[in-house]
Amino acid sequence: METQIGRGKTARRAYGIDEIALVPGNRTLDPSLADTKWRIGNIEREIPIIASAMDGVVDVRMAVLLSNLGALGVLNLEGIQTRYADPEPILDKIASVGKEEFVPLMQELYAESIKPELIEQRIREIKQQGGIAAVSATPALSSKYGAVVAKAGADLFFVQATVVSTAHLSPESIVPLDLAQFCQEMPIPVVLGNCVTYEVTLDLMKAGAAAVLVGIGPGAACTSRGVLGVGVPQATAIADCAAARDDYYQQTGKYIPVIADGGLITGGDICKCIACGADGVMIGSPFARASEAPGRGYHWGMATPSSVLPRGTRIRVGTTGTLEQILVGPAQLDDGTHNLLGALKTSMGTLGAKNLKEMQQVEVVIAPSLLTEGKVYQKAQQLGMGK
Amino acid sequence: METQIGRGKTARRAYGIDEIALVPGNRTLDPSLADTKWRIGNIEREIPIIASAMDGVVDVRMAVLLSNLGALGVLNLEGIQTRYADPEPILDKIASVGKEEFVPLMQELYAESIKPELIEQRIREIKQQGGIAAVSATPALSSKYGAVVAKAGADLFFVQATVVSTAHLSPESIVPLDLAQFCQEMPIPVVLGNCVTYEVTLDLMKAGAAAVLVGIGPGAACTSRGVLGVGVPQATAIADCAAARDDYYQQTGKYIPVIADGGLITGGDICKCIACGADGVMIGSPFARASEAPGRGYHWGMATPSSVLPRGTRIRVGTTGTLEQILVGPAQLDDGTHNLLGALKTSMGTLGAKNLKEMQQVEVVIAPSLLTEGKVYQKAQQLGMGK
Amino acid sequence: METQIGRGKTARRAYGIDEIALVPGNRTLDPSLADTKWRIGNIEREIPIIASAMDGVVDVRMAVLLSNLGALGVLNLEGIQTRYADPEPILDKIASVGKEEFVPLMQELYAESIKPELIEQRIREIKQQGGIAAVSATPALSSKYGAVVAKAGADLFFVQATVVSTAHLSPESIVPLDLAQFCQEMPIPVVLGNCVTYEVTLDLMKAGAAAVLVGIGPGAACTSRGVLGVGVPQATAIADCAAARDDYYQQTGKYIPVIADGGLITGGDICKCIACGADGVMIGSPFARASEAPGRGYHWGMATPSSVLPRGTRIRVGTTGTLEQILVGPAQLDDGTHNLLGALKTSMGTLGAKNLKEMQQVEVVIAPSLLTEGKVYQKAQQLGMGK
Amino acid sequence: METQIGRGKTARRAYGIDEIALVPGNRTLDPSLADTKWRIGNIEREIPIIASAMDGVVDVRMAVLLSNLGALGVLNLEGIQTRYADPEPILDKIASVGKEEFVPLMQELYAESIKPELIEQRIREIKQQGGIAAVSATPALSSKYGAVVAKAGADLFFVQATVVSTAHLSPESIVPLDLAQFCQEMPIPVVLGNCVTYEVTLDLMKAGAAAVLVGIGPGAACTSRGVLGVGVPQATAIADCAAARDDYYQQTGKYIPVIADGGLITGGDICKCIACGADGVMIGSPFARASEAPGRGYHWGMATPSSVLPRGTRIRVGTTGTLEQILVGPAQLDDGTHNLLGALKTSMGTLGAKNLKEMQQVEVVIAPSLLTEGKVYQKAQQLGMGK
Repeated sequence: METQIGRGKTARRAYGIDEIALVPGNRTLDPSLADTKWRIGNIEREIPIIASAMDGVVDVRMAVLLSNLGALGVLNLEGIQTRYADPEPILDKIASVGKEEFVPLMQELYAESIKPELIEQRIREIKQQGGIAAVSATPALSSKYGAVVAKAGADLFFVQATVVSTAHLSPESIVPLDLAQFCQEMPIPVVLGNCVTYEVTLDLMKAGAAAVLVGIGPGAACTSRGVLGVGVPQATAIADCAAARDDYYQQTGKYIPVIADGGLITGGDICKCIACGADGVMIGSPFARASEAPGRGYHWGMATPSSVLPRGTRIRVGTTGTLEQILVGPAQLDDGTHNLLGALKTSMGTLGAKNLKEMQQVEVVIAPSLLTEGKVYQKAQQLGMGK
Repeated sequence: METQIGRGKTARRAYGIDEIALVPGNRTLDPSLADTKWRIGNIEREIPIIASAMDGVVDVRMAVLLSNLGALGVLNLEGIQTRYADPEPILDKIASVGKEEFVPLMQELYAESIKPELIEQRIREIKQQGGIAAVSATPALSSKYGAVVAKAGADLFFVQATVVSTAHLSPESIVPLDLAQFCQEMPIPVVLGNCVTYEVTLDLMKAGAAAVLVGIGPGAACTSRGVLGVGVPQATAIADCAAARDDYYQQTGKYIPVIADGGLITGGDICKCIACGADGVMIGSPFARASEAPGRGYHWGMATPSSVLPRGTRIRVGTTGTLEQILVGPAQLDDGTHNLLGALKTSMGTLGAKNLKEMQQVEVVIAPSLLTEGKVYQKAQQLGMGK
Repeated sequence: METQIGRGKTARRAYGIDEIALVPGNRTLDPSLADTKWRIGNIEREIPIIASAMDGVVDVRMAVLLSNLGALGVLNLEGIQTRYADPEPILDKIASVGKEEFVPLMQELYAESIKPELIEQRIREIKQQGGIAAVSATPALSSKYGAVVAKAGADLFFVQATVVSTAHLSPESIVPLDLAQFCQEMPIPVVLGNCVTYEVTLDLMKAGAAAVLVGIGPGAACTSRGVLGVGVPQATAIADCAAARDDYYQQTGKYIPVIADGGLITGGDICKCIACGADGVMIGSPFARASEAPGRGYHWGMATPSSVLPRGTRIRVGTTGTLEQILVGPAQLDDGTHNLLGALKTSMGTLGAKNLKEMQQVEVVIAPSLLTEGKVYQKAQQLGMGK
Repeated sequence: METQIGRGKTARRAYGIDEIALVPGNRTLDPSLADTKWRIGNIEREIPIIASAMDGVVDVRMAVLLSNLGALGVLNLEGIQTRYADPEPILDKIASVGKEEFVPLMQELYAESIKPELIEQRIREIKQQGGIAAVSATPALSSKYGAVVAKAGADLFFVQATVVSTAHLSPESIVPLDLAQFCQEMPIPVVLGNCVTYEVTLDLMKAGAAAVLVGIGPGAACTSRGVLGVGVPQATAIADCAAARDDYYQQTGKYIPVIADGGLITGGDICKCIACGADGVMIGSPFARASEAPGRGYHWGMATPSSVLPRGTRIRVGTTGTLEQILVGPAQLDDGTHNLLGALKTSMGTLGAKNLKEMQQVEVVIAPSLLTEGKVYQKAQQLGMGK
């Protein structure tokens, strides 16, 4: 599997979601028979889709709506919602500036301090409205806010950084977060990520993760690969991390779900991630297009406001329908971005998969959807540029 | 042949029509000597090209014209033609709306019921004008309308869904179509599709298919791959299914043709499908550009009007000539979309293939027509953007 | 080397010029030391570049200019020059029509008959002005005009079709050209093409070819691949045909040059063809951009005027300099389309190749110049679209 | 590792920077712990980044600024700075002309003679302002100006051509530069380049190079590959040349750094070069965008002014910030072109590399960032072209 890219330097070929497709088997299924249930921590959900902890995607209202529809949304504890008592004018401002003013504005807005009382308030708001309260923090701030999060009654805690490991070296002045200790001390399930390899997935599961987030570099609003050169295409990353999950389950009897995170846009993308071995997916931009989304038609990355090395771009995604249309339909768009659950069920029907475990076993082919001359021709036709 | 895309997940590399090209052999042939005859069911045709059962492509007039020219057109029994006594104003409306209104309009128009008397009437109209009456329905409605179709005197029945199998699981309330029983009971040949694998092709032939349609995901007006993640590139799918045909012929002495369906635009595409093993092709968008086509310069997919999960896009293909020019020439365009039969005969001459069986044996090379910098440069030149 | 693209269907991966690059060795050379001499038939030339027999590229004046500069131009005997006593107004007209009128106009203009006396006149004009008279005809017309060509004093005869073979099947009413007999009977050297395989190259050399043209499908003004599905990428085709040349030389002591024809735009393209084994190249579009070219800034294919199946597009190439600037410099453009000889000599110097035989042995790497995101970014920068 | 591209012609697959990505390991690191120090000649630098010897990138002021920030800039001894006592009006003119006038203007401006006294003056200006004086000349002029450079107190001498070798053949009238003799005679360290192979790297190190520049053909302002067909993608070239460095170190105990030069735009590109084995990088266009850069928002190649075969294009790169922002941040852009040192440190932290030697060992995957349909879709979204 290793290819030599030069003398003494070998590399594995890794595959992205755009490079694979799913192959129907000998059986088909009525979509209504497809069972999409899964568990994360001690929570069972009908829909294996989680909304990313991004400020343009999840606020209190979105978290509640997503819960009610059978999915899940994660609130970013280090964003607008916990820095400002009234986030609405702030979000209005973000949506109103031009491309040049965006990074400086973000750096300025995120210089405002995070307020523990707002963390508590947001969690309580979600719970009071009947939602599942899932929240996210970086490793650096997790231990600081862990207690207030637990006290406020949150259901799930996501410790999330571009890349996590259980062996983080820090300057002597800083005590790094001990993930295993944190998982043990928190009274609620802790999800850890992101990672892309078998070894780190196993490390995180051993540390006590309730689920592991998989994905570095592939996201639409993420520029890790351009800025840092770091990333592993998702099909390969998911398959590797799912193998760690299966081995860990063999060894311990504990089934820790693996969640594909980053770069997923269409229903087909979600189907392919599960077929590579994921138990669920985390998506941002598809939900940023909901009329209820806090981003007002915009979507931006979590590393954007960095004062030193901003990463992640603000993307104009537009508003294409309600969250319900996007998540469970009926669809009004035919491009795979509406009725994500319907797409998953229809795909499972097409492939003969009765449940997500069967969906993880469907046949995959390597079939790059590269831009060929023929496709450019088709595209030109679609744009009315044909003769 | 299997590549590991990640731990424990292997995948085969599948090839598309855009990734191959045909290699001339040691002999050439005058195109007039190329014999393109083939048989489907008990019908012999001069041209191995079938027009897709799509509302923008085939109506009564097109079916008759195609028959007269030596080809075949299939009428969609679940479209405009059988829902409306007068389809013309409906087709006018479809052609007139903007991109945003299209999906909702289609959902509305296709909510009108299908009328058995219109099914009967359309079939009789084709027969009365001397055409071959080939019609298409989904598995769900085939048994309902099978009797009326046979009674009306149709020649061929296509049972067609995105993906078919002989083992379809349904909720208890629904009795799925038994394909083998249906083929046996229908007094006319039944064509089944679509499929993409050796095994399912063999299953469908055993079930009594008069021909098998091959192709999932590659079509211009089809977004199965984006919405569902499902699809197999055509060169590989055709070769696999053609191998099933050959094995079935070895075992039973019955030669069941395999028809490549989806994503074919030029004469070259058709030639390549046959070289991969197809006996004929089914095409939509090339015929949608005929001045006689019901689509008025537009083309859309069969899954578009779905009220729950619309798939398939409306494409503006324009009107580029008469059906005769497109099918048998003379061509007035030099891009491979006019005189498809002439292109096939010229290709066969170039390759030294006297008939379609020889054409199925010509040498193929993997030669991706990917967009390279050089080609973008050429393209810029062609568009007059050069210096 | 064979890959399975589906059950029972294997294919070789073939490589194009855009997919390779040349690797400097341990020695470099002052470009002035690079010897680019070669022989075709009994003619020695300083520059291994031939201008294509296309109406937008070569007329009497261009043939003479090319000869004087050390290269060669081939006059198309079935084009404008031999159908019209005064081709100038015809060429003006071709340059003046819009895209839609082009194919019908060409079909009309080429319906005018070919005049033997004009064939004779053009050849004599070239000779009188001191040029080398190389002319080209299709197999169908070669025997008809062979005598007049020889009588008029031509130096080289090119028998050229999209694809030639020594075993051409014709209807009984037509006697196909016997290539071996024609080569034997013609008093001047006969060049044969095009072909792309080892076997056919060997057949053509055995038939008496003075040189063999290699290339099917790759040309800028050629749409064989789109229309017919036929073609082999040039790097592979050249290497295969050059191997036939070397084997034929081993067996017979006769060295028959192999000429790469089609799709070459820059000096780099020419260098790469020779590095794959070509002795010379035939190019059209780079010369169509000369201020002296008959095409007035346009370039079109030889199969374009076909009344049944037109292939080949008219491309606006523009006029970028004099023929001298394009062929031997000094260059005024920095994109590889000026000073083609200088580029070849500089490349040979860089690679340490003293002559063309050494250039055929330089190291090649597979290095696709595919459009990557990074390159699109660069391109955007170049177009002033960056921030 | 060799693939047959045709009969008797094999080629190795070479990989570019755009085709790879870096894989996080089991350990992470706080970026502040990442040590990026390196040595070139006898000079230690904090930042392994050198500004190219290009007229749009380095003048006296830039050289001093780069030195002060911990990096290095190389002054082109054959450019504007040594031909004109006052280069400012010349640079104004270059920035003001249109695309068509550019090459002729450059040919005219560079026809002015190089003045030894200006060479001396520029070097002294750099030294007087506290900068490191690194200068560059072609092999042809190195021996001519070597003495004046040394006398003026320069710190580093770069002998740089598109391709260098220790075995250069010249016409008898010209005595080629003996690289080994030159390195021995110069009292300051001499850096040699460019090369792309193991063998030539070893030859240059044996000749006495203080560092070797790696890279032929990949640069943004370089068209070697188009004009000459010559080039090796950087990931492979760096790995091969780094292997020569390691073997030379094994044999001699001398560690000669290898510097990746050409085609690098983002922080991620720099990280990937080091991960392939480079000790440092040389970049042009990223610095051409500094407000202090002499190019006034433009960037052009060193072979551009050639009177015979100009290569290299003028690119409008724009001005995006100060040199400090670009090199050490804080960044105001989120696309990887600001805070290059921060990107390198963050990448090293993510990958768990404490220093550049560890960074050279991180895991690499082949992960082409090709333009897929999905990415074009994303891009369209970003440009606000989505629905």
